[in-house]
Amino acid sequence: MLKTVILPLSLLMLTLSVQASRIDQEPIKVIEPATGLNTAMVELGKNLWFDPRLSKSNAISCNSCHNLATGGVDNLPSSIGHQWTIGPINSPTVLNAEYNFVQFWNGRAKDLKAQASGPIDNPKEMAFTHQLAVETVASIPAYQTMFTKAFGSKDISIDKVAQAIAEFEKTLRTPNANFDLWLKGDDKALTAKQKAGYQLFKDIGCIACHSGPAVGGQMYQKMGLVKPYKTNNPDTGRAAITNNPSDKHFFKVPTLRNVELTYPYFHDGAIWSLQEAVEIMADVQLGRTLSKDESAKIVAFLQSLTGEQPKVTLPSLPPSTYKTPQPKL
Amino acid sequence: MLKTVILPLSLLMLTLSVQASRIDQEPIKVIEPATGLNTAMVELGKNLWFDPRLSKSNAISCNSCHNLATGGVDNLPSSIGHQWTIGPINSPTVLNAEYNFVQFWNGRAKDLKAQASGPIDNPKEMAFTHQLAVETVASIPAYQTMFTKAFGSKDISIDKVAQAIAEFEKTLRTPNANFDLWLKGDDKALTAKQKAGYQLFKDIGCIACHSGPAVGGQMYQKMGLVKPYKTNNPDTGRAAITNNPSDKHFFKVPTLRNVELTYPYFHDGAIWSLQEAVEIMADVQLGRTLSKDESAKIVAFLQSLTGEQPKVTLPSLPPSTYKTPQPKL
Repeated sequence: MLKTVILPLSLLMLTLSVQASRIDQEPIKVIEPATGLNTAMVELGKNLWFDPRLSKSNAISCNSCHNLATGGVDNLPSSIGHQWTIGPINSPTVLNAEYNFVQFWNGRAKDLKAQASGPIDNPKEMAFTHQLAVETVASIPAYQTMFTKAFGSKDISIDKVAQAIAEFEKTLRTPNANFDLWLKGDDKALTAKQKAGYQLFKDIGCIACHSGPAVGGQMYQKMGLVKPYKTNNPDTGRAAITNNPSDKHFFKVPTLRNVELTYPYFHDGAIWSLQEAVEIMADVQLGRTLSKDESAKIVAFLQSLTGEQPKVTLPSLPPSTYKTPQPKL
Repeated sequence: MLKTVILPLSLLMLTLSVQASRIDQEPIKVIEPATGLNTAMVELGKNLWFDPRLSKSNAISCNSCHNLATGGVDNLPSSIGHQWTIGPINSPTVLNAEYNFVQFWNGRAKDLKAQASGPIDNPKEMAFTHQLAVETVASIPAYQTMFTKAFGSKDISIDKVAQAIAEFEKTLRTPNANFDLWLKGDDKALTAKQKAGYQLFKDIGCIACHSGPAVGGQMYQKMGLVKPYKTNNPDTGRAAITNNPSDKHFFKVPTLRNVELTYPYFHDGAIWSLQEAVEIMADVQLGRTLSKDESAKIVAFLQSLTGEQPKVTLPSLPPSTYKTPQPKL
């Protein structure tokens, strides 16, 4: 009797110790669902997220380029903005974006809130003005009610618009990826190929930049660290912000969470195949030529980073009034 | 004891009789939630509905012009298609569209299924080809699984794509509008002003065309029946289909369900104010000049036609493969 109790107990302790050690020791961390958010602000932010009236044409919403049906991106090399303007850079995913240490590829926004108002008055994107966006929202009584619930006042500002959108974005995490289940101790959550791919990912050095809960998003790094990255895209990255030539082609390291959904890859959106993207990265960042077998293993590991996609019910947006600015196509 | 039983019973019978008579006698009929649909086909259709890969650019989905967050329309005079092409006519709502006796303003599609494939290969809209749309869907394993569940075979055709989208569209009804609650016997569901507006709506003759569950959608009628409707829109309506000059400016009578959400109004999308739209209709269709008080009453009644909007959870679309045609912007 004693024996049968002791055995399961020691097994349990062994399992707990494996779990604790993986979670503690692995350089990639578990993503948990968001908690502690302001529910009224999230609801307001969701309405604003889907509201095309934040754009000059009333045809482009946050969700146009960061589509929650497609991994939080638009799966285009670069996005289509006002009057079919093609943007200068690939749209990063909004999923788990809260984990990024800065926002945008070149880090010009310090957090989600600072980012959220950017596309609204970018002439190549939503092409509106902050003033008209605020006038639009303020002209709609139901929005006044939502702002009162979220902020305690019906006063509307672009700052509050951005804050509410950011609060909604904080809900957009993707927990329970197979990799996270494995981190938590479920050995069968990864295939042998995926485990081999993860080991390779660490051994060859990908992990140096792609770590943490978002498997990236924690630093700037030069695109083409050991060998130039060939691209037609003229973006100089961080250097455009700092005016420091040594920052040329430094970009925020993107998250690899849900990477199988967020093609095409890199800041120029030039690469459609995840395997090819892995091989290029190994080459230009690490000076390493991967065999097809090696890159396939890393791809298998990367596919284990696809988590549960947010379950988002479309809002029913409140109608405009006679005070609402009309769209300009 | 007998008395106390008889009194409530007779009250109940009176109520039942009021309900029965309204439902039977009023020319506007109740909308009930859809039943008896093929669940697997609805789910497939929802994925296709939100999938921008049915367009040449991979940026335009059914939902772009018939946005379920905004009354099933885009709230633009006419829609924005491929490469920012401005469409020739206002996008009608998809909500309750199943009740339309034909589809499109000029009735060129006999039902939802016949309509659904039209925008995909319209060069001013999604600008794709049916063949490429089918190749796109067929290149994605998860879609093959969904087609097998819905149709019993993974063979994919534009016909099946359209049928699945139509099945999803059949779920997009808006029951429990205040007007329907009133039809079912709840006297307090309408305000006195709304009741007066409905009486006026019938008395002056709007009801001749706008009746049935969708409050429209049951016939063609001439836009400018008693007086020409002034517009810059060159569309000749039904005549373009029949080549019969007597059909000039005949359009399908639109539904008035959720009309407060579906601005701007008319086939040319020229009128943003519902009250102005009511006054123009009375003028050019009925030869009647409404007072502001009269048109305001009718607007109040029309607002009682806003029903429960569909609760639609965004799908997580399955990713493309190396076989999937790439977007052409």
